[in-house]
Amino acid sequence: MCPDRRSSPAPFNIGLLGLGTVGSAFAALLEERAGEIARFNGRRPVICGVLTRTRGSFQEILSEADLIVELMGGIEPAREYLLSAMRAGKDVVSANKQLLSQHGEELFETAREHGVRLRFEAAVAGAVPVVRVLEESLSATPIERIHGIVNGTTNFILTEMTRGSSYAEALAEAQRSGYAEADPSDDVSGRDAAAKMAILARLAFGTPVHLNDVRYEGIEHLHGDDLEYARELGLGLKLIGTAERRDGGLSVHVHPTFLYSGHPLSAVSGSFNAVTVESGTITEITMSGPGAGGLQTASAVLGDVVSVMTGGARPPAPPLPLRLIEDVESAYYLHLDVVDRPGVLATVMQALGEQEVSVRSVVQRGMGENARLVMVTHPVLESRLRVAIDRLREFDFLRSTPRTIRVIEEEFV
Amino acid sequence: MCPDRRSSPAPFNIGLLGLGTVGSAFAALLEERAGEIARFNGRRPVICGVLTRTRGSFQEILSEADLIVELMGGIEPAREYLLSAMRAGKDVVSANKQLLSQHGEELFETAREHGVRLRFEAAVAGAVPVVRVLEESLSATPIERIHGIVNGTTNFILTEMTRGSSYAEALAEAQRSGYAEADPSDDVSGRDAAAKMAILARLAFGTPVHLNDVRYEGIEHLHGDDLEYARELGLGLKLIGTAERRDGGLSVHVHPTFLYSGHPLSAVSGSFNAVTVESGTITEITMSGPGAGGLQTASAVLGDVVSVMTGGARPPAPPLPLRLIEDVESAYYLHLDVVDRPGVLATVMQALGEQEVSVRSVVQRGMGENARLVMVTHPVLESRLRVAIDRLREFDFLRSTPRTIRVIEEEFV
Repeated sequence: MCPDRRSSPAPFNIGLLGLGTVGSAFAALLEERAGEIARFNGRRPVICGVLTRTRGSFQEILSEADLIVELMGGIEPAREYLLSAMRAGKDVVSANKQLLSQHGEELFETAREHGVRLRFEAAVAGAVPVVRVLEESLSATPIERIHGIVNGTTNFILTEMTRGSSYAEALAEAQRSGYAEADPSDDVSGRDAAAKMAILARLAFGTPVHLNDVRYEGIEHLHGDDLEYARELGLGLKLIGTAERRDGGLSVHVHPTFLYSGHPLSAVSGSFNAVTVESGTITEITMSGPGAGGLQTASAVLGDVVSVMTGGARPPAPPLPLRLIEDVESAYYLHLDVVDRPGVLATVMQALGEQEVSVRSVVQRGMGENARLVMVTHPVLESRLRVAIDRLREFDFLRSTPRTIRVIEEEFV
Repeated sequence: MCPDRRSSPAPFNIGLLGLGTVGSAFAALLEERAGEIARFNGRRPVICGVLTRTRGSFQEILSEADLIVELMGGIEPAREYLLSAMRAGKDVVSANKQLLSQHGEELFETAREHGVRLRFEAAVAGAVPVVRVLEESLSATPIERIHGIVNGTTNFILTEMTRGSSYAEALAEAQRSGYAEADPSDDVSGRDAAAKMAILARLAFGTPVHLNDVRYEGIEHLHGDDLEYARELGLGLKLIGTAERRDGGLSVHVHPTFLYSGHPLSAVSGSFNAVTVESGTITEITMSGPGAGGLQTASAVLGDVVSVMTGGARPPAPPLPLRLIEDVESAYYLHLDVVDRPGVLATVMQALGEQEVSVRSVVQRGMGENARLVMVTHPVLESRLRVAIDRLREFDFLRSTPRTIRVIEEEFV
């Protein structure tokens, strides 16, 4: 039952959809902080309706609520509930990255049409307040680029691999520690990071970006070898999501990426998340913190509730379409397993040169049947590198499929 | 002249006090971004009155303005103008750290009384949105501790010293590069950082904190030696501001501090600023970026303007007094220059032990007249360490004044 609206302090009624790990953590945290929130805002937030699979009526909850908080996850019925709530003029808070990355425009459009707020800090980077900072900075600062480590599971696994574990060992350790699920495919394939980058790109550039627009590549195929060579080249390996203006359009992608040690994301280890925002006026700011544990997510959701209570958020602005660009330039790490005989390096260099792939550094290792060429290129269009690699694969001196990994070149202060 | 209020989009009139480096950068940035801001907010921000030392009338500007932006700096007349504006019911934005750290309560109280907003993102860490994040997270998250690198000049100097420069060389280089002023005393003494920590502590803990309540120590007396020994002990040196709950009270101070390399602030180099916020629910988040250049400051001011336009900010909450605590525990680096003869180490250890100063690691160096003892202690009350050092100074084997530097012990993921 909802408290009497005439009680003091006045109640702020929340309808909660979903009572799993995050929902329960949110309910407990709200209870704990309600007094302090009332002291600041004059109204006391209270959960006065809960919908789970087995109990509660959405219509009843909706009629009583000042705000709907959706923590059920999945597409349906979450989508239908959020749309109904907004059409009824209610503000909504959600932590649902699947929904936002696949039906974001429909949700934003509905919020705009009905003049309600749609908040989703918890959908992207747990307690790291990147959504709020992007939203508030958006109109003051023209953002050029975002780089993010937005999946804690893969960052944990890569950190373990950097310390010498194999992929399988690191994944098992992540599962033991609760950082990876029994079926880790959504995380290790890069799909979870791609969903979050779609949401961030929408926010930072005001352009509709669907999960399907984001090219992604996971970490399942990485070799311990690559990390070892990379160390010799002064590089560290992260799963990086990038959204950036390129040639008047927008490019959004997620790839395993090498970073130089001066890059602000290179020091982000374990299950932490971090996002770097670059623009001409602010240069670059980085925010980092724990990814989405239940308590961190609950805390981000509560932050959204408070911001709705204080009237801070506004309905989303209309979209500004930018062309999405697939073929972008970047530097690459290139690993070739070759038969070590005279002329091989020259042939490789010529095949690369024909596509204007210029090499910045090379490490050659081993003799006889086991020789390896490991190089870092200068920036080149991905399509050109692909052509060069297809050309290399025609030669008989290649002993296995060439491996490529992107490299972020900039070195910071 | 202010635009007609009936024009479309409706104008949002800004009265600007001060047209120095930051004021001019703000005016230019506003002009550039006004269209985009109007697209999001429905109103177009326009500067329709400027007060400088030689032109403009404050009363005229005030009567026309929806918002007053104060970028003059210094205490008077900035204080009087801000108070008058708020008493007239106008929202205000300021970048004035001196004023906020010395007259904060008067300003907050006036804002609360008149129900107006007082925004000051640019007063603390340039483009790093720490004020906004603290404000918005405050009621959702009970903050336990803040650590900050909030002065870019000293961080630049310390970074240079870590690379082998002397203090004098590093300061000269900072002055050549525009990171330090001709008279650097406000920065290198720690006073500038103390003012910013007073503002952050007020915000994070809701307790009135005056600049005079903040103990601070600068970097002028650091030795290249200390940095060298510290490296052997796996430590890096930063000027760290700390505000934390301790024994039911609040401790706020600024000191040169050693950090283990895993600490999120240890990788912040050059003129960058960074702040780490710790709490039970969010664990720890870190925000970093360039300190206060003119353009970064202007961008933070414009962010505040936008947040006032969107109705996001609210008048400050009443203060919650916490006792301010001076004597706090921390680990220390201790450098002793001693005559190397039998029994000295034992005597030192005994003097420390009497005050329950327990040693975590020791490096002993040199022979004969040049011996040095460098150690890191476990956490100890500062008052106890002082007593132990006073006791040591009574012995004739000490060849110079003992040097102490705080150490932050925690190692993160």
